[in-house]
Amino acid sequence: HLIAVLPGDGIGPEVAAEARRVLEATGLDLTFEEAAVGGAAYDAAGHPLPPATLALAQRADAILFGAVGDARYDKLERALRPEQAILGLRKELGLFANLRPAKLFKGLEGASALRPEVAAAIDLVIVRELTGDVYFGLKSRGTSAEGLREGRDLMRYDEAEVARIARVGFETARTRQSRLCSVDKANVLETSQLWRDVVIEVAADYPDVALTHMYVDNAAMQLVRDPGQFDVIVTGNLFGDILSDQASMCAGSIGMLPSAALGATGKGLYEPIHGSAPDIAGQGKANPCAAILSAAMLLRHSLDEGEAAGRIEAAVAAAIAGGARTGDLGGSLSTRQMADCILAGL
Amino acid sequence: HLIAVLPGDGIGPEVAAEARRVLEATGLDLTFEEAAVGGAAYDAAGHPLPPATLALAQRADAILFGAVGDARYDKLERALRPEQAILGLRKELGLFANLRPAKLFKGLEGASALRPEVAAAIDLVIVRELTGDVYFGLKSRGTSAEGLREGRDLMRYDEAEVARIARVGFETARTRQSRLCSVDKANVLETSQLWRDVVIEVAADYPDVALTHMYVDNAAMQLVRDPGQFDVIVTGNLFGDILSDQASMCAGSIGMLPSAALGATGKGLYEPIHGSAPDIAGQGKANPCAAILSAAMLLRHSLDEGEAAGRIEAAVAAAIAGGARTGDLGGSLSTRQMADCILAGL
Ligand SMILES: CC(C)[C@H](C(=O)O)[C@@H](O)C(=O)O
Ligand SMILES: CC(C)[C@H](C(=O)O)[C@@H](O)C(=O)O
Repeated sequence: HLIAVLPGDGIGPEVAAEARRVLEATGLDLTFEEAAVGGAAYDAAGHPLPPATLALAQRADAILFGAVGDARYDKLERALRPEQAILGLRKELGLFANLRPAKLFKGLEGASALRPEVAAAIDLVIVRELTGDVYFGLKSRGTSAEGLREGRDLMRYDEAEVARIARVGFETARTRQSRLCSVDKANVLETSQLWRDVVIEVAADYPDVALTHMYVDNAAMQLVRDPGQFDVIVTGNLFGDILSDQASMCAGSIGMLPSAALGATGKGLYEPIHGSAPDIAGQGKANPCAAILSAAMLLRHSLDEGEAAGRIEAAVAAAIAGGARTGDLGGSLSTRQMADCILAGL
Repeated sequence: HLIAVLPGDGIGPEVAAEARRVLEATGLDLTFEEAAVGGAAYDAAGHPLPPATLALAQRADAILFGAVGDARYDKLERALRPEQAILGLRKELGLFANLRPAKLFKGLEGASALRPEVAAAIDLVIVRELTGDVYFGLKSRGTSAEGLREGRDLMRYDEAEVARIARVGFETARTRQSRLCSVDKANVLETSQLWRDVVIEVAADYPDVALTHMYVDNAAMQLVRDPGQFDVIVTGNLFGDILSDQASMCAGSIGMLPSAALGATGKGLYEPIHGSAPDIAGQGKANPCAAILSAAMLLRHSLDEGEAAGRIEAAVAAAIAGGARTGDLGGSLSTRQMADCILAGL
């Protein structure tokens, strides 16, 4: 199996290196190839997603992604900014399904801004559509009939796009508590009304899954009030962007949470949900857990190595339960030392 | 001054009646006229916003709104559902600026899902644009080139729409701590890029206000992690819908929070942020505080009676500090009794 490692910017390289080390320790037959992405790729090759990097990602069985972004690139035109690399990879590789688990690790009850008893109940997965919606609809800058500057972005879904992400939602729910909450804004948006219609149609194939619907504004409230009520949430690209970050923060340290972006085949891109954190880059103090847990998702979803994935996840949980803590968790372990604790548990 | 009272559905009439009673107790020279809205208006006149109701709203100096909505109407076509009344009033009356203060009342630290010390620090105002964005852009259902059902909603802002809400944001910040955070998704959306450009241009007229920018996904995280960091947030219609509900929930009981929708003249619509709560309707146990605080906002923003508004707000705070509690706050006072406590303090 070929794993593309795209370390990126800031703390990306530091955490990706530890995730790779953990993958190597599994004893599975894996080959790794690295390429630059994000700001690092812009510096080296003039583009955040150079052709060679895209080609490697296309060839690979799975992609281990660090993080991208730095304020240094904010002045560039949008197409050259680091974030475009991640949008480009999603689109080019057809990675339409984003899985974002949010869960509080035992021992980290104090890390959430929510009351410990509210936070401890969080154990949900957000399934976010990733290649459609207002992210990829027609965009334009122009002049209105009155001669005013205008910005336009088309929000758009077709039934096939909705149906395939709905299926991922239902399938994910089946592996858990079989409860799926579809989030939309059907009281205002035609896109959402179509979304709701199609989700209900797909539900006919999943009579064993309990389906509910919630407006996005209410979902944002419920994720604060009682996040423990959710099992799996399925939603569009834009709402998923907002709600998944909110849910991650409810669960405490964003240094602990992984994500997967999956396509129709087994290929996927795996990345910690945290960003490039330029302020602590190069200091060896970033928390590698989210990257390591992303590597575990890679094993499960792209290589069908669920058992090895489970062992890594258990080792992370054990390290945390045993008191291992990087700075973001109130401890003083280095990135490398934290990974060592996890490797020791493997 | 003519006040249009639109009680609406569910608990709307119960809380609006108490807010009206408080307004009457101010001794100001006010005339009240009532009209049906929402599901109640659909039942009576076949439309959630009948012409007579709209005409009254147009004639009035200010509108006191209860709440609308009931699952009974969910099967109606969208244009006839109760929520369309509120969208229609905003659009027809040009109420483009939504002010949503979120603040924890002393004595209600236990009502928030956030840790008491995090929740106690919340004291912010969200300024939400209310008549543009994907809410009012061109909408359509159709068939794609591949023959698939498709839903489309155009997200759109022009510079004049952004500039006028930005000014409300800056002016609001000036009456507070002079810190304004503009929330957008400029790394993905053209609409947001225009938004950001225009907000920066308008900022030239407000050198005394400290302006920052934040992506909406990050804002959703920061509202959980450390809501105390915000003074005033200004954002578009869709992001404001999500973030303002999230912020309200962070502040604890949504039974305590008012809102104003303002136009270019002094006219405004004032409503509690809570919904119609059909489950407790008609039982006399709804919390009237949000409606009463909305009446206070009405006095301040539409009638220029800031002093009377301040007295009502102080009376609500005193009632809460003194232990007055409806069911949603863990007490047993009726709607009427709670209002009596507030009236006693006036
Ligand atoms: C960087 C940005 C374009 C991206 C998104 O909005 O999808 C990020 O926020 C994410 O959630 O992966
Ligand atoms: C009822 C609905 C259309 C409305 C909105 O989305 O604006 C409501 O959620 C609000 O925030 O006032």
